Amino acid sequence: MTLDDKLAGKTVAVLGGTGPQGRGLARRFAAAGVPVVIGSRKADRAEATAADLVEAVGGTVTGADNEGAAAAGDIVIVAVPWDGHAELLAGLASTLAGKLVVDCVNPMGFDKQGAYPLPVEEGSAAMQARQLLPDSVVTAAFHHVSAVLLEDPEVTSMDTDVLVLGDDREATDTVQALVDVIPGMRGIFGGRLRNAHQVEALTCNLISVNRRYKAHAGVRITDV
Amino acid sequence: MTLDDKLAGKTVAVLGGTGPQGRGLARRFAAAGVPVVIGSRKADRAEATAADLVEAVGGTVTGADNEGAAAAGDIVIVAVPWDGHAELLAGLASTLAGKLVVDCVNPMGFDKQGAYPLPVEEGSAAMQARQLLPDSVVTAAFHHVSAVLLEDPEVTSMDTDVLVLGDDREATDTVQALVDVIPGMRGIFGGRLRNAHQVEALTCNLISVNRRYKAHAGVRITDV
Repeated sequence: MTLDDKLAGKTVAVLGGTGPQGRGLARRFAAAGVPVVIGSRKADRAEATAADLVEAVGGTVTGADNEGAAAAGDIVIVAVPWDGHAELLAGLASTLAGKLVVDCVNPMGFDKQGAYPLPVEEGSAAMQARQLLPDSVVTAAFHHVSAVLLEDPEVTSMDTDVLVLGDDREATDTVQALVDVIPGMRGIFGGRLRNAHQVEALTCNLISVNRRYKAHAGVRITDV
Repeated sequence: MTLDDKLAGKTVAVLGGTGPQGRGLARRFAAAGVPVVIGSRKADRAEATAADLVEAVGGTVTGADNEGAAAAGDIVIVAVPWDGHAELLAGLASTLAGKLVVDCVNPMGFDKQGAYPLPVEEGSAAMQARQLLPDSVVTAAFHHVSAVLLEDPEVTSMDTDVLVLGDDREATDTVQALVDVIPGMRGIFGGRLRNAHQVEALTCNLISVNRRYKAHAGVRITDV
């Protein structure tokens, strides 16, 4: 398989790569031939997940603590729980300088009525990342991708588009190319980073869809 | 054509029915055999639009001022500009008591960088409607439907789903049935009304998609 030129020679780090979402994305990137470094709070957990993925899908996957993974990645995916988002990124600002960051985090709360978006002072997780990482190029993507489907070996094609947000054209083009390595997925430019909040929050609606229809809902953009 | 039982004997009023979005929806409902009353600030403009629609697609379409339309409708679609949303609804609270209201309004601003969601004290246009209409059943839908496509006589099928939000199952079922009368469209339950903000705001992202891809983008929900 030949990767798009925009991805040539690039390693993807997945911070929070031992959680379902990060692990699922890492699995699909590895299967497509993209070199991956799993990051986690504990390096040994990251290494174990990396070994599992190599066994499952092959490819080049290694593990490290989040800082080590951030240092090793050219494209760095942030797939950590919202709870630890600010603290983690604040501590990695210098490590992530000059790198392409892809924030996938959905700030959500849950109560008896289901999921709801949490207010974020900076406007969204992605805007918080931009504020905390002034020397990185911050984009946002992969908010609506079902971790269950990503991790299901029987799902060979993901029936979903991924909205990619950001203010730097080269960066969003690169992230779209990364989306496109996953069979079935299509990266669609979805606007500037200031419009990330509603994309993050829409995950709450998809959770409602999943409950009502017993589905793993995704989003397709029509006429594109 | 036989309408779904949930729509039998029901008239749909479209407040703001002389604007592109309202007029486009009215056109499609009328074409499907749903009786429609166009509402506008000025009754004569509403009557002229109604006459145009009857000529274009047939069906039963009349016009009235917004209050007259609200009184005549069993299901009342709110498709007015955000600017006049609160004032209009506050004045119609008693007329709309006991009725099913479908808010379609997207509070958006525009600057050099494109569209962005306007902050709404109540959380969203739909939540504002609920607050102003305590005796109505308020739902939200039709946010992402392209007015250009709705009004294009050559578009015989709309390739888009419509997220329907609300807290009353009978009401959201009825609105989904109303969506389903438009060929190609599918009404999908999209969660409680408190999660309407991000659905309204996502229109900003679709505007970015439209600009980038020269498209009239819609949204499909996969795995449903």
